[in-house]
Amino acid sequence: MLTKLASTPKPGGARTPSSARGRPLVGVVIGDPCGVGPEVVAKACADGRLHAHCRPLLIGSAAAMRDAVARTGVALRVRELDAAERTLGRRDVIEILDSGALDPADITPGADNPACGRASAVWLDEADALARAGRLQATVMAPISSVAMKSAGVLERVVQVKPGRSYLLLASGALRVAHLTDHVPLRDVSPLITARLIASALRTLDGTLRQWGIAAPRIGVAGFNPHAAGPEDEEQIAPGVKRARAAGIDATGPVSPDSVFRQCLEGRFDVVLAMYHDQGHIAIKTAAFAGNIAVILGPPYPHVTVAHGTAYDIVGRNIADHTMIENAIATAGSLAAGRAFPELH
Amino acid sequence: MLTKLASTPKPGGARTPSSARGRPLVGVVIGDPCGVGPEVVAKACADGRLHAHCRPLLIGSAAAMRDAVARTGVALRVRELDAAERTLGRRDVIEILDSGALDPADITPGADNPACGRASAVWLDEADALARAGRLQATVMAPISSVAMKSAGVLERVVQVKPGRSYLLLASGALRVAHLTDHVPLRDVSPLITARLIASALRTLDGTLRQWGIAAPRIGVAGFNPHAAGPEDEEQIAPGVKRARAAGIDATGPVSPDSVFRQCLEGRFDVVLAMYHDQGHIAIKTAAFAGNIAVILGPPYPHVTVAHGTAYDIVGRNIADHTMIENAIATAGSLAAGRAFPELH
Repeated sequence: MLTKLASTPKPGGARTPSSARGRPLVGVVIGDPCGVGPEVVAKACADGRLHAHCRPLLIGSAAAMRDAVARTGVALRVRELDAAERTLGRRDVIEILDSGALDPADITPGADNPACGRASAVWLDEADALARAGRLQATVMAPISSVAMKSAGVLERVVQVKPGRSYLLLASGALRVAHLTDHVPLRDVSPLITARLIASALRTLDGTLRQWGIAAPRIGVAGFNPHAAGPEDEEQIAPGVKRARAAGIDATGPVSPDSVFRQCLEGRFDVVLAMYHDQGHIAIKTAAFAGNIAVILGPPYPHVTVAHGTAYDIVGRNIADHTMIENAIATAGSLAAGRAFPELH
Repeated sequence: MLTKLASTPKPGGARTPSSARGRPLVGVVIGDPCGVGPEVVAKACADGRLHAHCRPLLIGSAAAMRDAVARTGVALRVRELDAAERTLGRRDVIEILDSGALDPADITPGADNPACGRASAVWLDEADALARAGRLQATVMAPISSVAMKSAGVLERVVQVKPGRSYLLLASGALRVAHLTDHVPLRDVSPLITARLIASALRTLDGTLRQWGIAAPRIGVAGFNPHAAGPEDEEQIAPGVKRARAAGIDATGPVSPDSVFRQCLEGRFDVVLAMYHDQGHIAIKTAAFAGNIAVILGPPYPHVTVAHGTAYDIVGRNIADHTMIENAIATAGSLAAGRAFPELH
């Protein structure tokens, strides 16, 4: 029966069944098949809640997914598609594009190997190409292994944050934090904070949040120094915020860094612009953990990842928590549809 | 009846009623009488829970406390003592030392004035002198007005953190954070982080926590850079931690700053040593707010303050939340008795 269902529709919107309409197609790269990625993706698909927000289309090894389905005991069939447009988004079927980038014999559960690193990069490229061609509306990446990708020389193919062009946004419930700078040694951050970069980041943030369905984004801008009282706060952040406000952006700041995240949690802001990696990461990871997701702002489509890794120590034991990847897939769909951040557990 | 009760005991331990034994005497400076200090202190005393941990002795204006009792409607009598040792610690009486430092006519509710700033400084000095003489076992400061104290030229009499000698510890439930450095511009923090200071701070922290009743303190040391991977982490923090471990201190680190606070919340550590103001303050204030307290490590007795201010906008309206000051007083008593941090709401 499933075979019939899956082979019925043709590429293109006209033949898409009514149940699929309005649900964006989200490409889910299954992550490194040696890690918990396939397991948590299978469990998230089986849960069924994410299908209200999107049609998930997996990208990766069909063999790895069949194995994950068997190990987790979820009641799902795995079906290989030959085109993204064929995705139905049914709750009882895992739909996957498998380009054959990985020989299933190369999967070494719980241990890194370069073949899986190389395959992860191919799948990420495939997802990106489909999304840029408008054939996917968003992408999600389950945990890859940076060790395996590095050993294969392909680590740079993970979607990167490019200072001044793209930004890492972490979200956990009402707390959402975009980061002006990312992996920079803390003592080198100060000279990077310029009024020009602040204004530019606020434009990107405001524009992207509007696309995602937040009609009038309220942005809290964190200060840099204790109580937002220091040279960077006065000379760079304040003028940058002023410039953004003059352009009609509802930005407030610099706000004392030790208050701004709580104010966001309490509903005062839709998002906080943090000045450096740990300012935002400490807020998010201390406030919560299980539901955290990360979205890259900047690419023409939402690209969502999770905060946990491959968790090699628990691979295959069916105990990995799928909450994050489920939130990631649902959020990707909701943002791509312009329905803002969904209410999730 | 209350008059009789309060005048019965004589200074000295011999005549102290059995109900008072083992309950440390905690001096509570009522804060600026123009702010919510007297109100929240009155409500905390009326709540009764803190009396399990200590005998509170207020220090400040008896007139301000009588007024606060009337405005809050709590069922308490205010009794002026002439010596700390007379404190009974009964739940139905507010006991206060009033040295006459403030003319009640100078109280201007909801507005700063230098007379109240000056009186705040006198009360803080009185509390410190009593504690250093062993006549109080701990002190608490309700919200003072730094504006009023500055206008009176006495702001420096607030108990200060002295780098290398005393440290600010914030606590909220299981999350406790001591700060290596305090109000320092962020770009100037890096050169302050030395292996010597780390080792010295860890000795102070370990010794103080043991005095407070934490038998074998487990200390997580936050790194300075993203993922604790940077020059300060490798060249200063790691050797400082190593030195402390060689001296028998259970210190771990540098731990990634975006993980260490969550690990503490989850019970992995008793306390975190943070490298800079916002690292610790963001963690504490984002994780929670209502119950937060601050303890100064370094003086020979615990000195505890609250995270909120004078809240002039709600003075006299009987809506100020007394949770923090209640936690502060109970914690001061519990630490002074070597009973560690109490389980509080």
